[in-house]
Amino acid sequence: MTIIVQKFGGSSLSTTEKIIRIAQKIKKRLTGKNRLAIIVSAMGDTTDHLVDLASQVGNPERGPEMDLLLSTGEMVSASLMAMALQKIGVPSRTFTGREAGIITDATHTKARIRFLKTSRIKETMEKGAVAVVTGFQGVTEDDRITTLGRGGSDLSAVALAKSLHADACEIYTDVPGIFTADPRLEPESRLIPLISYEEALEMASTGATVIQARAVEFGQKHRVPILVKSTFQEGEGTMITEKTKKRTKSLEEPLISAVTGTDQEAKLSIFGVPDRPGIAARIFTAVAAKKINVDMIIQNVSKEGKTDLSFTVPSEDLKNTRQITAKIAREIGAEGIAVDSDIAKISIIGIGMQSHFGVAAKMFSALSQAGINIEMISTSEIKISCVICKKEHRKAVRSLHKAFGLGKT
Amino acid sequence: MTIIVQKFGGSSLSTTEKIIRIAQKIKKRLTGKNRLAIIVSAMGDTTDHLVDLASQVGNPERGPEMDLLLSTGEMVSASLMAMALQKIGVPSRTFTGREAGIITDATHTKARIRFLKTSRIKETMEKGAVAVVTGFQGVTEDDRITTLGRGGSDLSAVALAKSLHADACEIYTDVPGIFTADPRLEPESRLIPLISYEEALEMASTGATVIQARAVEFGQKHRVPILVKSTFQEGEGTMITEKTKKRTKSLEEPLISAVTGTDQEAKLSIFGVPDRPGIAARIFTAVAAKKINVDMIIQNVSKEGKTDLSFTVPSEDLKNTRQITAKIAREIGAEGIAVDSDIAKISIIGIGMQSHFGVAAKMFSALSQAGINIEMISTSEIKISCVICKKEHRKAVRSLHKAFGLGKT
Repeated sequence: MTIIVQKFGGSSLSTTEKIIRIAQKIKKRLTGKNRLAIIVSAMGDTTDHLVDLASQVGNPERGPEMDLLLSTGEMVSASLMAMALQKIGVPSRTFTGREAGIITDATHTKARIRFLKTSRIKETMEKGAVAVVTGFQGVTEDDRITTLGRGGSDLSAVALAKSLHADACEIYTDVPGIFTADPRLEPESRLIPLISYEEALEMASTGATVIQARAVEFGQKHRVPILVKSTFQEGEGTMITEKTKKRTKSLEEPLISAVTGTDQEAKLSIFGVPDRPGIAARIFTAVAAKKINVDMIIQNVSKEGKTDLSFTVPSEDLKNTRQITAKIAREIGAEGIAVDSDIAKISIIGIGMQSHFGVAAKMFSALSQAGINIEMISTSEIKISCVICKKEHRKAVRSLHKAFGLGKT
Repeated sequence: MTIIVQKFGGSSLSTTEKIIRIAQKIKKRLTGKNRLAIIVSAMGDTTDHLVDLASQVGNPERGPEMDLLLSTGEMVSASLMAMALQKIGVPSRTFTGREAGIITDATHTKARIRFLKTSRIKETMEKGAVAVVTGFQGVTEDDRITTLGRGGSDLSAVALAKSLHADACEIYTDVPGIFTADPRLEPESRLIPLISYEEALEMASTGATVIQARAVEFGQKHRVPILVKSTFQEGEGTMITEKTKKRTKSLEEPLISAVTGTDQEAKLSIFGVPDRPGIAARIFTAVAAKKINVDMIIQNVSKEGKTDLSFTVPSEDLKNTRQITAKIAREIGAEGIAVDSDIAKISIIGIGMQSHFGVAAKMFSALSQAGINIEMISTSEIKISCVICKKEHRKAVRSLHKAFGLGKT
């Protein structure tokens, strides 16, 4: 039995015609010893529509009601996919997150997978039927529906691939794979055929929305190679796998692999923070308690016993973060807070940069030559990120793509 | 603790504004010892939309996939209702059919309730929170989602009222109650304040769509009084209860209570059926095996060892029934079959008619005077139905409503 896990994203499932086309693709793949588990996202922009309905009735907490609501989108597409398969003679069975045995913690709308009990899916596949699984969702041990956060269907796929000891984990999307830069911003960008988990993770975390960061992280931890490719276009796609397998083609490998950018973050600043031990911990503990991921953090040099603190969070978490921050700012006697959502974060990523000097300098001078001001900087072993003004987003991507020689040759 | 079960239909929930208004109604009702369980249908025409999606992928089967698909509509409205309640400070919790403990058989899309385990709902209500339950759905003992057939949310409400030993079971809809005739067809029609289960059941079975027939049947069997009233209009509504409580107002009670009609049935005829024992049984056993309800049946007097057989089924079952019938007609050596979906069924209903002669004659002559031809007739203790041509539907309702003196006085 060759077990193949395939995940189809919302844009690939936006119409019933597309669902029928995918069913035909699945049928073609179901030859010999191949057995398929299919993970589906919600059709098109269904999830956004559901979030909108929730906000119309007042969108309260991110509780179990929100998860019950959101989980329906994948149930619809899974049902339709199973029906489309049955229609063309392919035996299939739907599995909700619960039926698939995806057990999570109770952090509603951002639940983490605790363990998987996939025996029912295995039984179905052993009988030769296609298991069609709702992505993005699980269930608590207390038996309430949870969802895995934006892009969570990717995580469902990688986690199922691991649990099923799958021979392949394929993420199908509306682009041919992972590119050296977002092709909508940089026409010169190239497909990356092979990339390490580390780089893919940094890319996903810094704005490349092709695959969810947590899915890559899970793949890295459990050594699940992930193939990202286009649903309807031919092509080899991008294989995300271990670092050691990478870089065999040329000694002249580029310093960096890709440029990413996002304008979906916002910056918060707290001014006049008393410079005492424990203040930063207090702020970020309160933010973390709301399951909000803080990205970049900068603290100015202290002056007269006071300092300024800036950090970025996803735009969708801005409202919550602002409330928490304002409250703590009052409590600690800070002078005030400010919010700036008119920013973009631009990053360069590459394992190659670990052993090279001057990468950061090259990045800053490229941005400078393009007349772009840098507001914040953060670095890791394989990544450098800069916060800039939102309107410079595209220009920054193109400048860096060119400066690091990532363009088509 | 006074337990009140309220069910809101799809037209009452068609927009988020309406959901917010209903949440406010619920809050007002939640005084003193009152504890509420709210059963919701899918928003507006959601279910029709889902059925349409299913037919686009080409699967007309009534399997578990269809039920997973259909069940999502009520999940959406239940989530939104619970959120709307929480928004105005009313504690609430959603229950899917599964969480509500509604256990059914495995007849997908037309499942029958086997038993209820409502301890979790009770716990929620005892804590003072509103239980918001998805109508229309349950789960098999094998843990797959089922649905209870068209209008099944009414059944969910009555069954939960029984299981919770509710003090009231209230069905809220877009009309003020049950009328002597469909007000859209007969402007002279009146609201019926009190009606017996038997009559309500016959009315529901013969075209009055205010409440689902199976819900009334369940109410009758388990003695659950059911109040049907308008969601947004003031008014007393119609109480459906035991026969003995009825008819206290006047000795001059009308012979019949209401006129009903439907054009959602179709007629099948099998010609030249060999007149042998067991032939009819064979046909109707095959139809029943597909869970199709045959309504009226007529067999002509046998002539030269052959007979003709006609019967009616719901229009939605016509395609299936035609296939089955055609197959059996060949097997038994019948001469042929014919289908007529251009029909309406018109009925008069009333416990009063049991003890009166001449009701049938009065009905036939009223139709005759209106120039309407009768194609089929069937009678029960408290009902007489006639099949007529579809285009005479409205005229027939008005003629009978007048002939039996049901109009406003």
